[in-house]
Amino acid sequence: MAERQEMGSTKGAPAADLYPRKILEYMEGFLISKTVFTSCELGVFDVLLGAARPLSAEEISQAVGASLDGTQRLLAACTGLQLLSTHHENGQVFYSNTEQASVFLTRSSPLSLCQSIQYSSRTIYLCWHYLTDAVRDGKNQYEKAFGVNSKDLFQALYRSDEEMVKFMQLMNSIWNICGKDVIRAFDLSRFKVICDLGGCSGALAKQCTSVYPECTVTIFDLPKVVRMSQEHFVNEADQRISFHEGDFFKDCLPAADLYILARILHDWTDERCIELLCRIYKACKPGGAVLLVEALLNEDGSGPLTVQLYSLNMLVQTEGRERTDAQYTALLAAAGFSNIQHCLTGKIYDAVLGHKET
Amino acid sequence: MAERQEMGSTKGAPAADLYPRKILEYMEGFLISKTVFTSCELGVFDVLLGAARPLSAEEISQAVGASLDGTQRLLAACTGLQLLSTHHENGQVFYSNTEQASVFLTRSSPLSLCQSIQYSSRTIYLCWHYLTDAVRDGKNQYEKAFGVNSKDLFQALYRSDEEMVKFMQLMNSIWNICGKDVIRAFDLSRFKVICDLGGCSGALAKQCTSVYPECTVTIFDLPKVVRMSQEHFVNEADQRISFHEGDFFKDCLPAADLYILARILHDWTDERCIELLCRIYKACKPGGAVLLVEALLNEDGSGPLTVQLYSLNMLVQTEGRERTDAQYTALLAAAGFSNIQHCLTGKIYDAVLGHKET
Repeated sequence: MAERQEMGSTKGAPAADLYPRKILEYMEGFLISKTVFTSCELGVFDVLLGAARPLSAEEISQAVGASLDGTQRLLAACTGLQLLSTHHENGQVFYSNTEQASVFLTRSSPLSLCQSIQYSSRTIYLCWHYLTDAVRDGKNQYEKAFGVNSKDLFQALYRSDEEMVKFMQLMNSIWNICGKDVIRAFDLSRFKVICDLGGCSGALAKQCTSVYPECTVTIFDLPKVVRMSQEHFVNEADQRISFHEGDFFKDCLPAADLYILARILHDWTDERCIELLCRIYKACKPGGAVLLVEALLNEDGSGPLTVQLYSLNMLVQTEGRERTDAQYTALLAAAGFSNIQHCLTGKIYDAVLGHKET
Repeated sequence: MAERQEMGSTKGAPAADLYPRKILEYMEGFLISKTVFTSCELGVFDVLLGAARPLSAEEISQAVGASLDGTQRLLAACTGLQLLSTHHENGQVFYSNTEQASVFLTRSSPLSLCQSIQYSSRTIYLCWHYLTDAVRDGKNQYEKAFGVNSKDLFQALYRSDEEMVKFMQLMNSIWNICGKDVIRAFDLSRFKVICDLGGCSGALAKQCTSVYPECTVTIFDLPKVVRMSQEHFVNEADQRISFHEGDFFKDCLPAADLYILARILHDWTDERCIELLCRIYKACKPGGAVLLVEALLNEDGSGPLTVQLYSLNMLVQTEGRERTDAQYTALLAAAGFSNIQHCLTGKIYDAVLGHKET
């Protein structure tokens, strides 16, 4: 067996601050993302959830239909990421899911992030290959990444039924994690008639009816989104959730006490946001309100890092940006809303509430 | 101004362990990598290093030739990553490099990682888009990523002069950071005639002659690599560094006291490694040695995470893998080497030394 020797600081290693530990971590960020994405895509965590006992690399590789060598390396990296735990028996290694992996990385879990992960891996990862161009040009890179004209943003995002379902599933899985917090950020029990503009797969509408049993929610979205949502996401049996087809920039908005705009304004320029908020203000009953659900930037530009990164993502993928509370307040005020409050949830998405006077 | 309200834990937020903080961090890893890559590529840190004072987003965007909006978002994210620091004056924000950014992310710095970053961003990032296929097939994905047949690995890696220079620059920048530690891991002063097999751009050879003033180093590499190295990397004036053109699997190896294999064995299968080590053992003078410079995996599979990720990278890009100390010891012993020692440097690359008996 080899002799082991540890290197001491006396042997002339440069000072700690001359080693780029943090930058090297940043450089391997994409390796970590893709390791998680591939493990989900191959169904590693699903196989382990379904097994009655820890499994060997060989058993896992057979179950997911991947090479033994590749699977071994993937499992090792997942162990380093603390998504899998190992135990050793008779010289063999056996793997099992950590709780985080079982709850968030299996397809059957109600809190599954798998659909988010699929969208990140297949769509966002490729868009971000063109980040330099996006920063240089100051606009999204659909053309370069997918050969799709992005003049009509949602025509580009929904460029095929498959892409549209992927996008809807992304929305769905995020609200399964963050939805209850944003719906509970304010006491919304006085609003009985709610309209979720761009309500997509209805995940947030379901959170609403679950938290506020007396409300009804209309999901307003583009006709093809509504059809897809009825087909795949919303159970017909829920009488309190209904649909309304339309384009919120063009068509009449249904009257309501409360309008929800969840991750809508961040897709659009200030001008388009004010245009939309003015339309809502007009349709809103007196004493009603609008609830914005967005990830808020700190006023001083210090963070949160996640939201700063998302704002770059909005550059790469949309016409919009992430904003500070003050910026959302200004947009709401420009459309006539007053008594504007915000609530940080401590998770990704926060809430801003603006009122229409009685 | 809006009222501010913080959400308390009493308002029904799920338990901390039911929020996937760590997994969401993993999911945004590629956003972080690309933010750093793009900032380097645009020369943000170079502009700030060259400026006599902190600069506004407008000044930076003009200097790097990018949109103001895109630049603002990029600078914000770099602030969140603690690569830039800010100060506020008269309602405007001014940016300057942190020390880490100046030392490691500017092109002119002797410790620059910019070339590594360029290779990661343009080549490795794209290869990793096919990680799922690599794990499934158990082999590299040059064909899918670049339309290049990878039967001859280095013909694929060096598929154009531009790709070859990028690869050489990558090696160069890593040894500028980690080279001195691996060369000092053992006292090599008794070895006067050193041969660096696959010595590439000569960065490690330079570290050798600087740490051990009495040695001479021959850089052995493929003819086109030698020519490129002489043209771009190694100063003719250094009499202690010379070149030898050849293929270390086919051609005669020059006699030496010490052979260095730095990040060579990890490119190859066990069989090819033993074949190469046997050739070295034959050529090595009695009492000589071979120094392996590699990132070592822990014996128990627990980490280091970086090396587990690199082993997946070897799957995606090469025919090899990262190995444990025991695995390298076995390869060396199979070729006849004995008295095998290893040294962990605490940085990415470690050292293993095997001896040929006198």
